[in-house]
Amino acid sequence: MKIIKGGITAPRGFKAAGTCCGIKSSKKDLALIFSDKPAVTAGLFTTNQIKSAHVLLDLVRLRKKESQAIITNSGNANACNGAAGRDNALEMSEYTAKCLNIDGQGVLVASTGIIGKPLPMNEIKKGIKDISDKLAVDGSKDAAEAILTTDSAVKEIAVDTGIKGRTKDDIKIGAIAKGSGMIAPNMATLLAFITTDACIEYEELFTALRECVNTTFNMLTVDGDMSPNDTVIIMANGLARNKRIKFNTPEYEKFTCALNHVCAYLTKKIAADGEGATKLVEVQIKGARNIKDARRAAKAVANSNLVKTALNGCDPNWGRILSSLGAARIKIKPGKIDAAINSEPIVHNSISTNFSPEKLRKILKEKEITITINLNVGDYASTAYTCDISEEYVKINAHYHT
Amino acid sequence: MKIIKGGITAPRGFKAAGTCCGIKSSKKDLALIFSDKPAVTAGLFTTNQIKSAHVLLDLVRLRKKESQAIITNSGNANACNGAAGRDNALEMSEYTAKCLNIDGQGVLVASTGIIGKPLPMNEIKKGIKDISDKLAVDGSKDAAEAILTTDSAVKEIAVDTGIKGRTKDDIKIGAIAKGSGMIAPNMATLLAFITTDACIEYEELFTALRECVNTTFNMLTVDGDMSPNDTVIIMANGLARNKRIKFNTPEYEKFTCALNHVCAYLTKKIAADGEGATKLVEVQIKGARNIKDARRAAKAVANSNLVKTALNGCDPNWGRILSSLGAARIKIKPGKIDAAINSEPIVHNSISTNFSPEKLRKILKEKEITITINLNVGDYASTAYTCDISEEYVKINAHYHT
Repeated sequence: MKIIKGGITAPRGFKAAGTCCGIKSSKKDLALIFSDKPAVTAGLFTTNQIKSAHVLLDLVRLRKKESQAIITNSGNANACNGAAGRDNALEMSEYTAKCLNIDGQGVLVASTGIIGKPLPMNEIKKGIKDISDKLAVDGSKDAAEAILTTDSAVKEIAVDTGIKGRTKDDIKIGAIAKGSGMIAPNMATLLAFITTDACIEYEELFTALRECVNTTFNMLTVDGDMSPNDTVIIMANGLARNKRIKFNTPEYEKFTCALNHVCAYLTKKIAADGEGATKLVEVQIKGARNIKDARRAAKAVANSNLVKTALNGCDPNWGRILSSLGAARIKIKPGKIDAAINSEPIVHNSISTNFSPEKLRKILKEKEITITINLNVGDYASTAYTCDISEEYVKINAHYHT
Repeated sequence: MKIIKGGITAPRGFKAAGTCCGIKSSKKDLALIFSDKPAVTAGLFTTNQIKSAHVLLDLVRLRKKESQAIITNSGNANACNGAAGRDNALEMSEYTAKCLNIDGQGVLVASTGIIGKPLPMNEIKKGIKDISDKLAVDGSKDAAEAILTTDSAVKEIAVDTGIKGRTKDDIKIGAIAKGSGMIAPNMATLLAFITTDACIEYEELFTALRECVNTTFNMLTVDGDMSPNDTVIIMANGLARNKRIKFNTPEYEKFTCALNHVCAYLTKKIAADGEGATKLVEVQIKGARNIKDARRAAKAVANSNLVKTALNGCDPNWGRILSSLGAARIKIKPGKIDAAINSEPIVHNSISTNFSPEKLRKILKEKEITITINLNVGDYASTAYTCDISEEYVKINAHYHT
């Protein structure tokens, strides 16, 4: 596997575009991803019971396990808009199909932004017409920009899987994502769109996606708040014309490995670009009794406002880490926890190692912090991805609406 | 029942004092509460598995269901200090007993502050000697001051229960508390000390305390983080010489009602004085399927960083309220939720009531915000108490250690 350029349009037969249709005042706010031929498609969506109308439509659309395009708007979540929201989601999908001259059932929709405001359908329809003409094989970055809200950086990646196709190139995977706020564990907590030219059927595609999402996007938290709009969609259009990828083959392993790299890369990018974040934080749990405890422990530390504010202040206040583990409703031995920060041991048997505070404060100034915790009660491990919480986070979210 | 003056020393036979022993540089950091005679005593403590050595000692001491004094330090949690922490907790208790010339088993200990630092025992012992001589019937305020950490205001209250004793005065209840940060649901999440001169046995006292704490302190959240030190203790010294208060009597009702008022008052005071808070927020849930769902829903909204930052910015971003309910793992009908802010309807059947944003922004500027939510799936109700999250909260917690 190797990293390549091109983002979501790196795999054969995918085009993309991004444009400003007027939901936001001047930034791009409408993205379109298109496959030359209908693609096997799997999706994972928010487990929030309050789901956006876009997510609800996709859940219906994906019964067919196939799609050809995804139209996404940012700046408006189209959630909590009642029947009008449902009508608008359908209209976005059908109007895009009309402009692209494809089957209406083949267009998925996604959205992110403010909840409870009607979509400006006139602007959006003009935008859809416009963007359909802009589709390009180098359109990934424009699309990646158009799905952002409070994100400060575009998030895209592409990899060459190293799996041979029947064409001269290997199978590729490309992806774009947005994150930033309202980002919490339990299903994807963001928008992420992944394309591949692999020939693979739904069962294998869905299983690979779910496996990868469980250890990446689902272990991501910026603020513990889960959105009604979280969406991860993967489209596989088969244009590499490889022998179909099946379970229990080296190709399936390679494909999953490459897909995992893509998801992990985007997960870290989203964590590092959390609203107001100044650093990427990985919480690695070892020695848990079972995988559920390992995940819960990692998320408990990653979700603690007090741990995250301490990290923001480069403050070696390790007691907050132990306290958050104690509150996590998992099996621990209260006197048997070890912890390190960027490999510097700070806690052994739940008490201070008498580390040098000056040294640790210096370590805490780094841009990437890994907190390693050994619960010493079993053999299971898990990693959560997050960021610090800054005054900037509050500033952003106190006035996002207005 | 009526509110009276005197705080924790209002009930007969209680004295208190507060002093600065040197844990903090200049503020009071040591508090002593003393009853002229041994008092029936019930306590509720943190459910955090990481418990401070002080809490662990109290759990042993309270098997006797009796105590005569509580010595409390602020500025140091005495948590995660291993065997030395346990020795120090015991020494604080026994040295206090020696200075007061009472049974060593009769002294409870409590603490709040930084985790993982050794207690400065020389200073503390000097402080204990000093404070034992300062005990006074008007010492409530000094003690209330001495238990604070980042709190900005003293929290004390006293009530006359209206229940006759055999002396000329009614039975009284007095209390002091501290809160501010690391405040989350699930057991008391703070320090609160309650005194009463009622004659009541342990069963009744403990049951009354537990009932009141469940709907007050346990429904309080400032930041979702649970401390290893949370402690609520009630001492009943019987000096009102009333006929013993028993279950299923008008006196028990009156007593519980007065105790509930005391706990609710302190809960609101703590919420309003949350670190960096600019307003008190009550989240009232109605129409839940059962009491567990009602509490979980109330806490989910009260714990949402996004709801709390929006409240800080006086931003009518109601979608975040619905989103937090959808993520709360309770039974809802996604299209059937009603919500109001300070009685102004903002959501009906999960969509906007087309309220005036200007009017709502004005309402949101008030110092006390009540969010009322009807889930419309049952008959159960619950209220959670919290505050907004401000940039100041982050500032305080980024540098609390240093």
